Amino acid sequence: MEKLLLLIVEAAVELAPRETWSHPAVKSYAAKRGKRPGEVLLDKSYHYAAMKGLPKSHKRGRPDIAHFTLLEALGSPLNRHGLLQVYLHTQDGHIIYINPETRLPRVYERFKGLLEKLYREPAVEADGKTLLKLESKSLRQLLEELKPDVIILFSEKGERLGLKALAETLKTYRRPVAMVGGFPHGDFEEDTRKLADLEVSLYPEPLEAWTIVSRILCAAEWSMID
Amino acid sequence: MEKLLLLIVEAAVELAPRETWSHPAVKSYAAKRGKRPGEVLLDKSYHYAAMKGLPKSHKRGRPDIAHFTLLEALGSPLNRHGLLQVYLHTQDGHIIYINPETRLPRVYERFKGLLEKLYREPAVEADGKTLLKLESKSLRQLLEELKPDVIILFSEKGERLGLKALAETLKTYRRPVAMVGGFPHGDFEEDTRKLADLEVSLYPEPLEAWTIVSRILCAAEWSMID
Repeated sequence: MEKLLLLIVEAAVELAPRETWSHPAVKSYAAKRGKRPGEVLLDKSYHYAAMKGLPKSHKRGRPDIAHFTLLEALGSPLNRHGLLQVYLHTQDGHIIYINPETRLPRVYERFKGLLEKLYREPAVEADGKTLLKLESKSLRQLLEELKPDVIILFSEKGERLGLKALAETLKTYRRPVAMVGGFPHGDFEEDTRKLADLEVSLYPEPLEAWTIVSRILCAAEWSMID
Repeated sequence: MEKLLLLIVEAAVELAPRETWSHPAVKSYAAKRGKRPGEVLLDKSYHYAAMKGLPKSHKRGRPDIAHFTLLEALGSPLNRHGLLQVYLHTQDGHIIYINPETRLPRVYERFKGLLEKLYREPAVEADGKTLLKLESKSLRQLLEELKPDVIILFSEKGERLGLKALAETLKTYRRPVAMVGGFPHGDFEEDTRKLADLEVSLYPEPLEAWTIVSRILCAAEWSMID
């Protein structure tokens, strides 16, 4: 394996959609933070009431999942060895590129602030390097650019594969893509599922995104750097 | 292995100490949350200025580390299989027992609110079960009660042990204790270090607490349930 390409897909990250702007929960939340309703990330723990009528609301408004999952990935030994590249694919049709050297805020509110800024100014640079970049791009387009030799979707509906078997599998590819859902409940969209070559289940019950990611990283480290 | 006993030790969790109560950063933070300064958790991202004069301030005021680490542990397959028990040992001399069935808040601010409540009312119960319990107790006392057959401290200064070797090691014990530091920088106290039978390093550089925990859990799952 030359590099593991980790894609957090359908991540529950988006700016509060227009339908919620006039709802008191979103209005007062935005005002408290000195922003307009359309400038804040949708967050179920604050906007629950405003999200009731939204389509697919069970999958939306959970940027905490992306936060924890990205921290898990960027702090991993695999990443420190230069063997990992992470992308966030959001439910609202964006791809966020994350430089492996990026140090994300540990505090959730600051992480949200960083993403909100990224929607306004789509690149964060430091010392001539791009640390974060947000682009309007589909998952299919990203995959075409990445040219992986296999695309593995992690889903409890997939074929059961233990950690040892996963470690063996990853080792046989040069640039495997691992797609992990960045949403709390429900299933992948058919459009996402279609892109995968393999659908793999690490555990018979649903696991949290960060747990799946840490097990994938652990299996890759087991093969590559242990 | 019958059960892995995971102890997050010297966790950077404490109520704002008396010396900080009159500092504007703590006063205004507490007021905003409708609490008195002595009722809020010390949090470096909000109380940085107030913490400057505190002894060992580099190790203190990071409840976010306990938050992520506990989420990582409680959501693990090992925990779902009933093979894990987690305790939080705080820098201010408390032990927090966490029932394996406890569902912690995903949102950091709510997690802090839960701990603050625990300092006032030291037990959370539901359906006749104790979900969380805070006691004034030393790490030494806890270890005497737990009766482990080995106590392993994870520290980058320990003897280097890879994931495979860790999996093999854990398997040979019945009730191993794994102690992982719940603080951001600096070293373990000598009093903590003395309690360990083994000092083990999973990686030559410091790793975040949640990364160490997920690798320990992964290694245990590898041995026990894969």
